Amino acid sequence: MTRARDLGIAIGDLPTGPLNAITDVPGVLVGHTTLIYDQPRVARTGVTMIVPRDGGIWSDHAFAAYHVYNGNGEMTGLPWIDESGMIGAPIGITNTHQVGVVRDAIIRYAVDRELYESFFLPVVAETYDGHLNDIGAFHVTTEHAIAAIDAARGGAVAEGNVGGGTGMNCHEFKGGIGTASRVAQTQSGPFTVGVLVQTNYGLRGDLRVDGVPVGRLIGPEVVPTPWPRHDSSSSIIVIIATDAPLLPVQCRRLAQRATTGLARVGGYGHNSSGDIFLAFATGNHLPAGPAGPYNLRMLPHEQIDPLFHGVAEATEEAILNALCAAETITGFQGRVSRALPHDLLREIMAGR
Amino acid sequence: MTRARDLGIAIGDLPTGPLNAITDVPGVLVGHTTLIYDQPRVARTGVTMIVPRDGGIWSDHAFAAYHVYNGNGEMTGLPWIDESGMIGAPIGITNTHQVGVVRDAIIRYAVDRELYESFFLPVVAETYDGHLNDIGAFHVTTEHAIAAIDAARGGAVAEGNVGGGTGMNCHEFKGGIGTASRVAQTQSGPFTVGVLVQTNYGLRGDLRVDGVPVGRLIGPEVVPTPWPRHDSSSSIIVIIATDAPLLPVQCRRLAQRATTGLARVGGYGHNSSGDIFLAFATGNHLPAGPAGPYNLRMLPHEQIDPLFHGVAEATEEAILNALCAAETITGFQGRVSRALPHDLLREIMAGR
Amino acid sequence: MTRARDLGIAIGDLPTGPLNAITDVPGVLVGHTTLIYDQPRVARTGVTMIVPRDGGIWSDHAFAAYHVYNGNGEMTGLPWIDESGMIGAPIGITNTHQVGVVRDAIIRYAVDRELYESFFLPVVAETYDGHLNDIGAFHVTTEHAIAAIDAARGGAVAEGNVGGGTGMNCHEFKGGIGTASRVAQTQSGPFTVGVLVQTNYGLRGDLRVDGVPVGRLIGPEVVPTPWPRHDSSSSIIVIIATDAPLLPVQCRRLAQRATTGLARVGGYGHNSSGDIFLAFATGNHLPAGPAGPYNLRMLPHEQIDPLFHGVAEATEEAILNALCAAETITGFQGRVSRALPHDLLREIMAGR
Amino acid sequence: MTRARDLGIAIGDLPTGPLNAITDVPGVLVGHTTLIYDQPRVARTGVTMIVPRDGGIWSDHAFAAYHVYNGNGEMTGLPWIDESGMIGAPIGITNTHQVGVVRDAIIRYAVDRELYESFFLPVVAETYDGHLNDIGAFHVTTEHAIAAIDAARGGAVAEGNVGGGTGMNCHEFKGGIGTASRVAQTQSGPFTVGVLVQTNYGLRGDLRVDGVPVGRLIGPEVVPTPWPRHDSSSSIIVIIATDAPLLPVQCRRLAQRATTGLARVGGYGHNSSGDIFLAFATGNHLPAGPAGPYNLRMLPHEQIDPLFHGVAEATEEAILNALCAAETITGFQGRVSRALPHDLLREIMAGR
Repeated sequence: MTRARDLGIAIGDLPTGPLNAITDVPGVLVGHTTLIYDQPRVARTGVTMIVPRDGGIWSDHAFAAYHVYNGNGEMTGLPWIDESGMIGAPIGITNTHQVGVVRDAIIRYAVDRELYESFFLPVVAETYDGHLNDIGAFHVTTEHAIAAIDAARGGAVAEGNVGGGTGMNCHEFKGGIGTASRVAQTQSGPFTVGVLVQTNYGLRGDLRVDGVPVGRLIGPEVVPTPWPRHDSSSSIIVIIATDAPLLPVQCRRLAQRATTGLARVGGYGHNSSGDIFLAFATGNHLPAGPAGPYNLRMLPHEQIDPLFHGVAEATEEAILNALCAAETITGFQGRVSRALPHDLLREIMAGR
Repeated sequence: MTRARDLGIAIGDLPTGPLNAITDVPGVLVGHTTLIYDQPRVARTGVTMIVPRDGGIWSDHAFAAYHVYNGNGEMTGLPWIDESGMIGAPIGITNTHQVGVVRDAIIRYAVDRELYESFFLPVVAETYDGHLNDIGAFHVTTEHAIAAIDAARGGAVAEGNVGGGTGMNCHEFKGGIGTASRVAQTQSGPFTVGVLVQTNYGLRGDLRVDGVPVGRLIGPEVVPTPWPRHDSSSSIIVIIATDAPLLPVQCRRLAQRATTGLARVGGYGHNSSGDIFLAFATGNHLPAGPAGPYNLRMLPHEQIDPLFHGVAEATEEAILNALCAAETITGFQGRVSRALPHDLLREIMAGR
Repeated sequence: MTRARDLGIAIGDLPTGPLNAITDVPGVLVGHTTLIYDQPRVARTGVTMIVPRDGGIWSDHAFAAYHVYNGNGEMTGLPWIDESGMIGAPIGITNTHQVGVVRDAIIRYAVDRELYESFFLPVVAETYDGHLNDIGAFHVTTEHAIAAIDAARGGAVAEGNVGGGTGMNCHEFKGGIGTASRVAQTQSGPFTVGVLVQTNYGLRGDLRVDGVPVGRLIGPEVVPTPWPRHDSSSSIIVIIATDAPLLPVQCRRLAQRATTGLARVGGYGHNSSGDIFLAFATGNHLPAGPAGPYNLRMLPHEQIDPLFHGVAEATEEAILNALCAAETITGFQGRVSRALPHDLLREIMAGR
Repeated sequence: MTRARDLGIAIGDLPTGPLNAITDVPGVLVGHTTLIYDQPRVARTGVTMIVPRDGGIWSDHAFAAYHVYNGNGEMTGLPWIDESGMIGAPIGITNTHQVGVVRDAIIRYAVDRELYESFFLPVVAETYDGHLNDIGAFHVTTEHAIAAIDAARGGAVAEGNVGGGTGMNCHEFKGGIGTASRVAQTQSGPFTVGVLVQTNYGLRGDLRVDGVPVGRLIGPEVVPTPWPRHDSSSSIIVIIATDAPLLPVQCRRLAQRATTGLARVGGYGHNSSGDIFLAFATGNHLPAGPAGPYNLRMLPHEQIDPLFHGVAEATEEAILNALCAAETITGFQGRVSRALPHDLLREIMAGR
């Protein structure tokens, strides 16, 4: 698996975490279920699960918030995030038509294991893989979603054509899952910011790599686009994790900063795009059912700028990692989505 | 089926539509799938579908917006409603654990009938019936959801223990589905406001009927509550339809006014409650794929107050209709949820 | 000064604080500047200041949030409340045309006393007194605003025709400033909720007192309305204070619950109304410039319902207190706004 | 006055309007009051007014909406924009301490000319010029604000050290007012998007010009920053105008796209920054007091992407225009804020 840094591309100033991945945030696990087969109907799809607190999120919730850059997409569970500022379950990402089955599957997982007393409201997001995946076949099942939770691990994260990103495209190259991280120094100490993206957005001509207009330099005449005319771009989901002791109001600030990274790579939040960003912070513990108040810590707002830079940089690099890791794939109705050519990219970036 | 007006209770000043139901708004259809059986596991649940434009909503969208009074609940599709101000499919209401299957089912319905070119984002909401329904059995299927769309009709609407409301409670009496409507006169002519509620909220002592503290007068010593100690109340979904030519920003205003009606019956938006209100307006047509701009009409804001009163009154009465129509039911683990006694209610209201 | 309880009217179940006023929340002070004179131009206006933390709010901020029930009004400072979840200065309420001078005056107060290093963003709200006050005379000055800060005290709060409420009306009786409080028991201990309102909203026929339709029973034929035809109602500002250790996300929940109390008295959030509610919580300290994280406490969401009831009850009673304390006044262009007659009200409420 | 294009810098693909200014949108006027003097106290401040509809905005409102990228700033009038989706007066921009006087001045302007029947809620925003301007002197008066309305004209717009931008900085060079425009082709015809910015944000090292890291190439060792250590950046106000027939929900989408342009120049929405964006659309007329509904047109969402690109490009270029037009200035306490050197910039951009 090739990453942006393998090609000499490093975004920004802040140091990465050891893995340069969302799993650098302690306790954050990632699991994929990848579905690639041609019979009886073409599957290029899957599910990715982000599991906070080493799986203990069910009884020790985390502060969270979201930001919508363009809302032509789905993320379930938003009213309770708004109201409570918390999440209390793994976060799923899949294809557009199957947000529901993944959402209910997370409940079934909890019901079967008696993880909740009455109810909770899972967070599941999506992007549309109907160009490469025969999406009307509804390939993803309850079992696939649960398998992604069970598969969740720390350590290096598989990127590119995996999990929810299997059939996705990015700037009219093959896209998919990408991740990156940054370590931000504050007066209250260092904190890690990790980002995982499922990229499925963007026009070729808009792609920039660290400011260089790569998408114009590698036009359709060099690398064909997946289909003749892509009128408008699709979506990107960004999941941001941090171990900083942030309140919900601060998680929202972090979520919004994904926009900065996205804009720099070439995202405009097109009309048909679902650009939805979720940030959660594990720096406070919210165990179920206390008799008295929680004891919390809060990073002062005045110290938050390094985290803003961390989110912007890690989002930008996570998108590039998705582009670099994704491999050329042939899918539904014979469509071919081609990988960003590493040699050309390296050459362009070296020559700037 | 008994309604509030059958007991001499009429809320507010505005006239009702002919049916005093959401179906008074031209083109609005309602369909229920009701699941009541005891084997192999106890089902007291279902699905209710609200289908705008006589089913033509798929290709002629409607302006819409929502308001959350308390967000401990789910309504899918919110980012696109925020972004576009539109809905483009039937609206489903079901139980908490099965929002997903109903949401995906609406997509499958559209895929099978080729109603959409690529994707859309269905709106499905829920309340929690896990006290009367063995919710962990996940009774609702894709077919049940599609059956509710197919069953959608104009005319009188079944209320009480039907559809998504089958296993719901309200102020610790049996609740469920209720509906009502009002005709509001404006300088631009008369418009109808119709409301449909799925009630599952409220403490006994908080129930007021047209200002009269009925819940205190019919306490647990008169009519037992469904279970010994109901610490906190659950949820209410309110769907508001109007034929007025409203913009999205005005639909949001209407949605928020459901709060007024809810507050008067005794809703506080308790922590565990998902009180989510959706309003859509059919007074403008938004056919798919025009080459030029849409031609719209907009009710001036200065003329909107009668619609605000209409929403408040119809919400209040729809909740009472749910209470009056619902019948005593025995459910999961032998729990009994008792109907609001009509004779006592009539007596109290006559004596004020 | 007559209050609702003096007339035998007590709203809800929760006990009041010792003063039944916002000043029951420790450290909350209230100051009024009242302008009543006829020459050279008619003044029936003023400024009310709510000063948290015994005046120490400048260097020990408080968590805060707001809710807008209808936005035809002004409250400055909203973007920073949204972003930070905090306020850091006294809160002003005045007339519509002079929000600006009061807002800048709070800055001047801080500049003169070197209370801030660079800048801050004051919160000032308004309702429209142009019927009784010659509002085009712009009576309120920087000095008037500063005088209200200087006048801020604990203890009993003057109500009715005082401060920002001097020229205001309520349900077409004379209105103005009102206040009330509740003590809410939680698993984390008792907390006080205090409410102060500046009432200038509502139609006569919509007024309800504890569910009784008083506005219909004391119609214009009994007590004339201030002017022949009041097409639509104006505004209400609600300021909520609590000593509970709430986060910003929870302050927003409290702010929204003012709607419940308002709705029960007869508020519909009419088009021309600016119904804006601010809640702040002093239970956490946020001293300026810490090197490390703040240490906070947070009331678990599961324990917040009593505070919701407290806000609803105190808002309802504060409005009634404004109505009971306000006295008949003659103002601009000879208009007379009449007090709600205490004897009639007492009689009606006794007879229910 | 030098503009970016004079130095060979043209952002993006879309054509500009004839003036490459917000005044390319028909009817949009701009007026400045610029205050530069040293006695009795140092003034480097002013007011800028954007006046839609050739001054007829008072009786023919325009749809509008806003977006907050970071809320450490003020824009008055937000609740009514949210509620109604409209503005009905000129828009002011000034310094942080004097938003109030400018806001009330707009009301006084209307009162004196009887432009409104009862009340309205002006929109005034700010950035902080307290480094170059002795802001505690409160230089701006009611008369200054009214003079800026009176000075509003179409045609070329003065940029740099003028109006509200007089004392502002940008990426630690001298900043101020900038403007740009784009013509966007849609299936419904061509529409103009105009942007005006008041820039006062950004760190040196973050400045990028069309992707080139100019801020690193012209570091403090080449051009000193205005003060030794600028811990965090300040604010930017972006006003977007278009003649497209957009609804409020679409104006919000446009406002949010200013983020894209800002991010590309180097904006991170730092904690101390007030990055607030307002978009209004003159393509529909909303004359006061109609008896029946308004007749409107609406650009279909599917056609809006070119406008998104237009906003992003014009915002990016307007910021650069502010940087190019601003001239070195000495201000309060002898502080010097230096212009971005044109020769160096031209050289760098030529060599990429």
